[in-house]
This record gives sequence, structure tokens and C-alpha cells, in this order.
Amino acid sequence: MSHNTFGQLFRVTTWGESHGPAIGCIVDGVPPLLPLAEGDIQTLLDRRRPGTSRFVTQRRETDQVRILSGIHEGRTTGTPISLLIENVDQRSKDYSAIADTFRPGHADYTYQGKYGIRDPRGGGRASARETACRVAAGAVARKVLGANIVIRGALRQIGEHAVADANWDWDAVANNILHCPDSAMAPVWEAYLDAIRKDGSSVGAVVEVHASGVPVGWGAPVYGKLDADLAAAMMSINAVKGVEIGSGFGAARMRGEDAADEMLPGNDGPGFTGNHNGGVLGGISSGQDIVLRFAVKPTSSILIPRRSVDKNGVETEVVTKGRHDPCVGIRAVPVGEAMMACVLADHMLRHRAQTGQGG
Amino acid sequence: MSHNTFGQLFRVTTWGESHGPAIGCIVDGVPPLLPLAEGDIQTLLDRRRPGTSRFVTQRRETDQVRILSGIHEGRTTGTPISLLIENVDQRSKDYSAIADTFRPGHADYTYQGKYGIRDPRGGGRASARETACRVAAGAVARKVLGANIVIRGALRQIGEHAVADANWDWDAVANNILHCPDSAMAPVWEAYLDAIRKDGSSVGAVVEVHASGVPVGWGAPVYGKLDADLAAAMMSINAVKGVEIGSGFGAARMRGEDAADEMLPGNDGPGFTGNHNGGVLGGISSGQDIVLRFAVKPTSSILIPRRSVDKNGVETEVVTKGRHDPCVGIRAVPVGEAMMACVLADHMLRHRAQTGQGG
Amino acid sequence: MSHNTFGQLFRVTTWGESHGPAIGCIVDGVPPLLPLAEGDIQTLLDRRRPGTSRFVTQRRETDQVRILSGIHEGRTTGTPISLLIENVDQRSKDYSAIADTFRPGHADYTYQGKYGIRDPRGGGRASARETACRVAAGAVARKVLGANIVIRGALRQIGEHAVADANWDWDAVANNILHCPDSAMAPVWEAYLDAIRKDGSSVGAVVEVHASGVPVGWGAPVYGKLDADLAAAMMSINAVKGVEIGSGFGAARMRGEDAADEMLPGNDGPGFTGNHNGGVLGGISSGQDIVLRFAVKPTSSILIPRRSVDKNGVETEVVTKGRHDPCVGIRAVPVGEAMMACVLADHMLRHRAQTGQGG
Amino acid sequence: MSHNTFGQLFRVTTWGESHGPAIGCIVDGVPPLLPLAEGDIQTLLDRRRPGTSRFVTQRRETDQVRILSGIHEGRTTGTPISLLIENVDQRSKDYSAIADTFRPGHADYTYQGKYGIRDPRGGGRASARETACRVAAGAVARKVLGANIVIRGALRQIGEHAVADANWDWDAVANNILHCPDSAMAPVWEAYLDAIRKDGSSVGAVVEVHASGVPVGWGAPVYGKLDADLAAAMMSINAVKGVEIGSGFGAARMRGEDAADEMLPGNDGPGFTGNHNGGVLGGISSGQDIVLRFAVKPTSSILIPRRSVDKNGVETEVVTKGRHDPCVGIRAVPVGEAMMACVLADHMLRHRAQTGQGG
Repeated sequence: MSHNTFGQLFRVTTWGESHGPAIGCIVDGVPPLLPLAEGDIQTLLDRRRPGTSRFVTQRRETDQVRILSGIHEGRTTGTPISLLIENVDQRSKDYSAIADTFRPGHADYTYQGKYGIRDPRGGGRASARETACRVAAGAVARKVLGANIVIRGALRQIGEHAVADANWDWDAVANNILHCPDSAMAPVWEAYLDAIRKDGSSVGAVVEVHASGVPVGWGAPVYGKLDADLAAAMMSINAVKGVEIGSGFGAARMRGEDAADEMLPGNDGPGFTGNHNGGVLGGISSGQDIVLRFAVKPTSSILIPRRSVDKNGVETEVVTKGRHDPCVGIRAVPVGEAMMACVLADHMLRHRAQTGQGG
Repeated sequence: MSHNTFGQLFRVTTWGESHGPAIGCIVDGVPPLLPLAEGDIQTLLDRRRPGTSRFVTQRRETDQVRILSGIHEGRTTGTPISLLIENVDQRSKDYSAIADTFRPGHADYTYQGKYGIRDPRGGGRASARETACRVAAGAVARKVLGANIVIRGALRQIGEHAVADANWDWDAVANNILHCPDSAMAPVWEAYLDAIRKDGSSVGAVVEVHASGVPVGWGAPVYGKLDADLAAAMMSINAVKGVEIGSGFGAARMRGEDAADEMLPGNDGPGFTGNHNGGVLGGISSGQDIVLRFAVKPTSSILIPRRSVDKNGVETEVVTKGRHDPCVGIRAVPVGEAMMACVLADHMLRHRAQTGQGG
Repeated sequence: MSHNTFGQLFRVTTWGESHGPAIGCIVDGVPPLLPLAEGDIQTLLDRRRPGTSRFVTQRRETDQVRILSGIHEGRTTGTPISLLIENVDQRSKDYSAIADTFRPGHADYTYQGKYGIRDPRGGGRASARETACRVAAGAVARKVLGANIVIRGALRQIGEHAVADANWDWDAVANNILHCPDSAMAPVWEAYLDAIRKDGSSVGAVVEVHASGVPVGWGAPVYGKLDADLAAAMMSINAVKGVEIGSGFGAARMRGEDAADEMLPGNDGPGFTGNHNGGVLGGISSGQDIVLRFAVKPTSSILIPRRSVDKNGVETEVVTKGRHDPCVGIRAVPVGEAMMACVLADHMLRHRAQTGQGG
Repeated sequence: MSHNTFGQLFRVTTWGESHGPAIGCIVDGVPPLLPLAEGDIQTLLDRRRPGTSRFVTQRRETDQVRILSGIHEGRTTGTPISLLIENVDQRSKDYSAIADTFRPGHADYTYQGKYGIRDPRGGGRASARETACRVAAGAVARKVLGANIVIRGALRQIGEHAVADANWDWDAVANNILHCPDSAMAPVWEAYLDAIRKDGSSVGAVVEVHASGVPVGWGAPVYGKLDADLAAAMMSINAVKGVEIGSGFGAARMRGEDAADEMLPGNDGPGFTGNHNGGVLGGISSGQDIVLRFAVKPTSSILIPRRSVDKNGVETEVVTKGRHDPCVGIRAVPVGEAMMACVLADHMLRHRAQTGQGG
């Protein structure tokens, strides 16, 4: 049982509320002797950090991570790694007006219904602030995976505007603030988002994450399938409503002779004529790139007035004036990468446990 | 760690290969004093059983389930329930020709890569035959959930043909062999599938599953989210390539004011103006219907010749002459229902554990 | 959560009641490519089998094990291994008289209190018959561990009569029906047990289990300690009331300079001047023999009348006329060995997962 | 898998090294709406704190606990509770001389063998300092259990000197610095320990812990037995070498008619004529007091020179001049109580999950 723990052997347990004194996580099961410094983690945290452009929340958090345990003289010792990030900019007053109101599309109503209590400040535990811990843990996971496994994410789609395969360019992603893999599309997205932001609205997105260098054999039938764990990992990210791998929902329209990638002899083992399966067959990695996408709904925190009810069931109106992201999908890119890294690190260890491969 | 176990408190562990002497499962954590007979399980198994129409595999399995433990005088005792289904029609000769060949789109290559050995008869452990155990376990899960929670599944789409919301009729589903909720669409699908079958091909599908009657509060932040567990459950089913909840991938194209269902006062607690979130907010059930869909790829077992390689890396051609489903999505409907039931039963117990609600 | 599952990576899930149609277990997480046949398991089951001497229950069970899955052409495939043992000699009539009575010292009262229902036939799930599954799983665990790790058990003590260290002889164990490591003590025990048997009584015992060949490094701080898992494993065996490792309770009387084994240079790494720690330091194996003991209470099933109450709280008298063991400690020897094997196999895989050692 | 996590539903994950910046734990799965303040935890931590008498280590730690999450307006919210204790007095220089030496009886050698690296400062992760987190978690567990369940611990034995049942007086425990339940024995122990301390030696002990008020039904057959989990809990405490419940190892010398407590009609359900089973039958609580004992070895950190080897296998001599406890059993009393509380809280939730009882 692990309400706040993710993974089986590479295990991440996160804690903390949006407006508490700090958030953090414990990363357990990490192999010993890996070099790890706070800077390794900080670099990735800075990609997710709020306040870095006009398209993400203006909350001012430095997101400085501290390693409190598990490292000796710059290397992992095999004991749990405790990471702590202080909350600096908790403007609780932004939220006081809505402490007794259920914001539409948020978890206010369900937390209250489940627990009979909730921390209303900034969404409490349900805040996307928790994802900083995922990114921190993902940085550790990347160390476990090593340099041969490359994990990259980008935005595939914002609202109506999707990037076509033909225009996909990984090198473009770092050159714009929207993680857009199509340099021609980036300014279109910016203008589109500016308009939405000015409307006080928000919009959904699709994030795509690839992992290359994964060997054949990771993943475990039948309830430890690599893609099943990836699906859970992505769906657990705030605001995610769908996950697909390879051809995904597109496979529903395909015929068998188109969907099943043929195999051909190759110099380094067999090759495939395509990757409709997204690098996973029968729940086990095939050696091809792992390719997945997940859909992020538009944030429900918008300036447009919305009808709702308060704790007493009385009708009220909600306008969210806090600092929010017009498209939370943007900051979900490093989070999706981190979850990919965590799942892969976990399965690397699980595979090694059972088979001894990768020792 | 649970390669072959699903669930935390309501736990299902399955075992068995397609062509071994039997398959089965252990259902653990079941509350005591629930009435349970083999007939309760058999009814649901019969819906998934092969050989019932020209659109599903012609393998002749009676799928008779036996309860070997956990029941005393017709009621559950709280001890593990062992269910066993003998394999009757294992025609291993159908598969002998391909024992050394990797069938495209199947798990042959990845099992061999992972384990260095595999049972090639009928796909071994990777066969969809394993899903009979899921259906059996799901029957137990329904007993745990009780009569107030209704779980229903249907095919939303076969290949290019999708059922529109306006034509959706739950009552139609049982009136055709394709689980089609649109009586006008059913004959279209039949003709379409007949053509595909005659081509020796196969086609993908989308399955939709609803659960009504789920109270507010099931699911647990942040890594035990109800939708994250549902995503893993569905993605773990053979051939599934994508899962979405509520508006799913459609949410990527929406704006915040459209996606966040407003709340209104109601006689039995607040109501919602829509269900874009599919009954889950922040990973916790909202009291609305749980609504999800999953995409099933076309089976890779087709009569059309496909290129592949054998164990020695030599090019070969694969034609699958075994008995297979032209659209595995059809038989995935009761499997999806079963996984929904298992996830809900698990979360019912998890919720009761932490909060005492539903005692 | 794992009411009926033992282990993390090498996982055993058992099911079945004393007088149901069968008992069995699923062994999951087993590495692939290990040779395994029913005979490997049967040999060990036969050591635990009832009816083999006048000192164990006269129930006639052949305890024939069947492997239903997970093996292909004589080798493990990495998929779950399902083992089934049919119950042949379920004389339910022996127990019908006490279905409504709580037998003193048995689990009748607590099962009824917990579940509100119980299978009274032969103790149901609480019967020591469940331990046959442990022995079967232990046989698989030994295959995982390989021939270099030798696990041996013996009776250290029956009632008042304990074997002294000076007289301990492993070779003697197989030469008597009581697993006695002291050939001079064996006839003493036999006469002692005969007298107890004729009194219609029973007596307790201490079982000792050693494992040699375990390398340095198995076990995981701080809640996955090797000795903590061993303690749970042994305490989970029916009738066990205490577990100790190395000097155990004797360490309470010792001074630091006597209890801490000194280390000395050796040809194959450091050696120790003693083994007061029983092969475990800080929860991790030291390379020395793992040495533990557990105390088994006298069976509560005796011919001597005992006062008790029935389901309605009315006073009654209990005389157990069924077929029982005068000293259940005897048959606990192979069970203790099996649990040692299971714990070690699990930790071998856990160690390999985190460190890559033993790949 | 949970190297550093304890419990299934009430889950405690600890982190931190003896001489790192801090130690701490996350307590997950806590029911909502329980009042909890730092003072509730501090009171119990102060009982375990070092430096409080001449018989415990002179390390000066204030052990001030901070609650970083999971509490809103003084009550638990159901989200993870993060507790942090800063290390104030880490005199690393005390230990620098032995960084490359394996101290006899300590975990230095096994950590090095397992991980190839270790934090030598104060024993690193293997230090008993970790047990402060157990005590903190135990304070939360007591809140979960409520006031009706009373958990008490005392020292049963120090070295050769054991308290007789006849002299056991719970009220005496708080009146001496040794948790001695016999006011006549307390000065004997003090004189005895003073002599051992002056010898530069140490001595073992036996701790006894009782829990009263536990209802019938907690614990789960067959691998989630209450006593199996208690055994693992106690054995996981530093320096513990044995655990027994009820009559424990004494049961090995008993006959069936003496060991099985008879049952008698009572006003509030049946009563028992004794408690040889320590409140657990078949792994499930009987409603009687839970009674267990565990043996603590003498600390291996003594002033008396001991032979050992260094990392290079060269013979050396170890004299531990750091600040240590002459009898670590003393400070193990609150730790044993805490582990009892954690196990019971976990099983309370597990029982409620499956049966709905205690909702």
C-alpha cells in the first residue's frame, strides 16, 4: 500500500502541501556508489520552476533542493535519500476567500468528501507543487539509468494546434519556452496562449515523452507491465486525463497488417519496420524507443467566473485570482520525463533482480 | 512487488499458460460473509468465453470455474479464494511451426529477450487466455462492491466506425454479439468485421466502461489515485495501447471554462453540470459515474503473411493459422468491466481502512 | 498488503483449508532457466508428510504435488509457478462435534471474532496443513539459491530435554525419526514422547535452522533486515511463540566483550572468533552461518479434557479425538528450513536488484 | 519492497544518518481528523533522548521534532505527515579514527560488503539514532489507536538480573531511570550497571512490552499474523537478537494441558484462565493483553580493546571512545513501545479494511 509512494524497488515517497513550510521526498532503493550532488537535481528542478515565463504561474519559488541523507562524499550509499525543498512564496491570502468553496474542476470537493478536512491553502496536497518532488526524484532515477538511456519530452499539442510528425525536431525543444519541437509552431502557440491568457482562460495540451537506449526485457508480465506502470505514472500527474503508448488510440482504427511492426534481420539483433507498439510488446521493452503521450486538461483555475457551491451546499461563484498557468501542460513536460525516468529505473532494478541481467 | 498480482487490499494473483493444464487465480483480502457460488463467476466467464460467435476465436473452451478454497457453506470466510479453470482445448500442434519464430506484434521476442526461454504454445503466459482469470476475479469484486454499484461496458468503436454519444443505448448492448450500444450500428459493424475476417486481417477497437453508484471519496492521492490505478488496470490488458478518463485526449483541445464541470446545489448533495472529469477529481471519486475508454490494437495474429526473423536472426515469414479473434476488442469488454470492478473493490477497502467510511 | 503472501521479490502466496478439496501455492518472481521438476518438490514434501511415524498425526495424506504452470521443458520460465496438492483424507466427521466450540489454544475463537465465520473442519485455514505449501515453495527457493547454500534444520529441544552444543552432529539428524542431532538423545526423546502420547498430552520444542554459504551483504537496513524477515517467517509458522538468532535471549546475560565476535585476518577475507550474532550484523549477512532457533508450543489438540465455551458463551468441555501430533515441533523442522530458504531467496534477489551483485 | 518503510496501511518511512544534518520520517496512511501537535510527539521522544542519565550515551541531542506536513489547524488531514529532527551534536571527530576499521559486533563490515561504501560517522544509517524516528512515528500511531489501547514497556532483565513476575509493578517503572518495574530491583541494577560502566564494558537486557485494550480480531492469517509482524518489528530494532510472545521459549518446556489457556464464560464475552499465548491465537488478537519480550545484546561499543581488521584486511585493535550506552536495552524500552504502537495501528486499519469493524 502506498498512497504517497511510487515504485517497487526504486521507490519515491513524497510529502508536503502547497503552502506548508516545505515539500520533499524520500528516494529509496537507489544503488550505491552513484555520484550525486544537489546540482544534478537542481538543473532539472529549474526546468519545472514557476515564474520563468509569462506562460507559467508567477509564484516565486526558488525551488532550492537540499540532500539530507543517503550521500557520503558525493556518492550514494544505498540508504534512503531525503530531499527537501522549502516553500518560500506561500501567499495564503490569495486563497483565503475560497477556503469554504469547492472550486470547479479541482479536488476541493473530493478531498473534503474523502477526509472531512482539507488544507485549502493553494490546493494543499492536491497542488501541482507536489510535482517538484517528482522532478527531483527523476533526477536521481536518471543517475540510476546511466547516460545511455536518454529521456526527452516535448509538447505535442496545445489546444487545437498539434505538431506533425514531419516537423518534429528534438533540437528545437530547448529553443523556446513552450517545449515545442517545431520551431515554426512555437510562435503560433505563443500567440495562441497569449490570447487565452488575456481571456483569463486556460487550455489543454498533449505531452510526448520518449526514452531511447532501453534494452530488450524491461517490464514484467502480467500486472507489472512496463506500459501499465507508465500509464499509472502519467495518469497520477495532476490534470492528466489520458495516456497512450505507440499508436495509442490511433491503433483502434488500424488493421492487423498495419499495426504489427514487422521484424527484419539486423547487424545488432533484429530490427523493426515501425514502432506502432511504442517500444513495448506484451508489457516488455523491445529495444525500440519507448514512446508515449499524455493529455493534460486545461487548468481549472481561471479568471472567468464559474458557478459552484460552498461547504454548506449554497450556490456561489468562483473566480480564481491566484497565480496560475494558462497551460499546465507546459510545466508537465519535465514532470512526464521524470516519471518516465522513475518507472524505467524501477524496472531496471526489477529486471536485474529476477534475471541477473544488467548486473 | 507483484509481477502477477493486482491490487493492494483486494488482491488478485493469476497464473497459468495458454496451453498448460489449467489457469487460475487467487483472490485475497475479500471481506467475509459474502455469498459466493461458482455460478456467480460462471455467468460472467461465459460472456468472455471463446467460440461463441464467428467474430471470436473458435478455440473450444468451456471455461468451467472451480472454487477450491475460501468459501464455507456458500459464504466467503475472509481467507484466500482459489479459482481454477482447466484448459480443455490446447491444440499445441497449431503453434509448433512457430516455436522458433518471433511473431510480429506479439510478445515472443520480448519474452525470449527477457527470460531466455518462453512457452511458445499459444503464446504461453502472454496469451489473452489469462484474462479469463481477470473476469473470474471481477465477479468476486462485484460481490464486494454490492448491488448498488453497477459496472457496464460496451464497444465504442471498431476500426473506423464509432458510436456517437447521441446514439448510445445501454439496453442495446446485450442484444448483439458485438457489445454494440447502438442497434443501428451493430449490423454495420458485423458487415465490416465479416469483410476483415475474410481478408484474414483484424482491426482495432475502443472499449468504454462505466461505473455508477460509486460514492464520493474513493481513491487516494497522490500515487494511489483512482484514475491512475484504473489506467494501469486497463493498460495491463492484452493489446491495450491507450486509456483515457472523462474527456480524455479530448481535454487537450478544450478551454478551462468548458472542461471544468460547474457545481450546483442539489437535493442529495451538490450536482455537476457535466462529467468531463469522468467521475474523478484529484484522483478521488466525485460521486459521478466513472467513465473510461481504452484502445485495443488489432490482433497481430492474422492470415496475411508478415516478415519476421527466427531465433537465429534469419528472415522468415509468419502466417498465423491458429484460431484467433478478428477484433480482440469484443472480448475485451467483459475484461474491462472486470478490471474496473477489481480496482473499485480495492479502493473501497482502502478508503474504509483509512477513513472508516463504508464500514 | 499480503495476508497470504510471503516475500517481496521471491513471492509465495498460499491458499486452501485443511478439509477443502486441495491446498496450493503460487511462487512468483522465480528467475528463469532453473531446472525444476515435481520430484524436486516431492522429496521435501515427503519429509513433512503426516502419517510417517507414531509421533506425528495419523492423517493419511499422500501430499502429491502437481506443477500447473511456470515450467517449460523442465525449466522455469520466469512466470508464476502454481503448485497444487489435493486433500485426500479429509475426515470431516472427526470435527463435526466441535464446530460450535472454541478449542482452547486454537484459533477458533479469534477467527470467529475476526470474520464472524470460520471453516471448522480440521481448523480450516488455521490448520498446520498450510505448511505443506511452505515446504513446496521452499523447494523452489532452494533451486533459486543453488547448491552452494546449504540449509539444515534439527530439533534442539523437546520439552525438558535439550541437545548440548558439544553433542550436536548434523549427520545424526537423518538417522532418527525425530530430527535429533544427538544420537544418544534420540532414544531419550522417543521414550519421553511415548509417555506423553500415552498421557494424551503433547509437548513443546525448539527447532534450530542453519544456512551456510550465504555471502556477505544479504539483508537491507532498516526495515528489511535479514533477521527481521527471518523472525517474521518463523513466527508465522503455526504454534511458534519465539524466535532468536545467534546467541538470542542468551545475549541478554552477556557483556560486550563476550558478545561481539572479534575479527581476524583470513585467507578468504576476514574471519570471526565466534558467531554470537548468528551470521547477521546490522540486518545484513556477514558471510558466517545463519543460525536461528524458534520455539514451538505443545499442540493444543489433546485427549485430556479442557474447559471452554461454545459459540453461545456456554461452558463446555473439549476433548480432541482427531489425529494430531504429540509434538508439532517435529514436523516444524522441514517447515523452518523452507521458510529459511524462502527468506534467503527473496533477499538474494533484493540484494541483486539494488547492487547488481550475484548477477 | 520497503527497505526503509515499515507497515502496510499505517506506513512509516525513515531516513537519515547519525551524523548527517537531520533525521526524519514520513508517516503515511494516517486517518484524518485526529488531533496531533508537535508536543504529542516530543513527550515520547524525550523518553528516548540521549544524555538524560549516566546510563545512556552522553551525546547532547535536543531531539526537537518539527511537523512539516499532513496537519491542518491541529488535525491530521489524511496526507503524509513529515517529521524532521535536526542533528545538533554530531562530533564526527570521535569517529574519524575508525573510518577504515570494522568495529566488532557492528554493521561496519556488512554495510561495506553490501554497498561497497558506508558513512562511517557514528555508524551512519546503522546508528541507533534512527530509532528516534520510530518513537516519533509511534506517537502518531498512539493517536490512531486512541486512548483505550494502552501500551507500556519496561525492562524485564539486565544481564544476570531479571525481575520476577511476582514483583512486577507497572507503577514503579516511571520512578527510576532504568524503566525497572520492581522498585527493589532498581538499585541493584544501578549498582550493577555502574560497575559495568566503570569496567568500560556493556551488558545485554530483555525488554517487555504490553498492550491492553486490543479487541478480538486484529491480525491476519497466514503471513500477516499479528505476532509475525510484531516479531519483525522488534527484531528490526538495533541490537535485538530474539523476540518471544506469551510464554515464548518457555512454551518449549510445557505440556499441552498447561500451555493452552482454558476459556470460561464471562460477563463481557469469554474469559481465559491464563495468557500463555500472549494475546494472540492463530495470528489474531484474542482480546487479552498482547505480551512480548525481546532480547537486546550488549552494545559492541566498549572501552575494552578488541581485535579486528581494517578495510585492507590488516589486523588492528578497536577501542570505542565515543559516547555510548552501557546498556542499550534501557533506551530500547520506548522504541519497543513505539514499534508495538505502529504494528497495532497498522493492523487496526487492515482489520477495518477487510471486515468493516472499528469503522
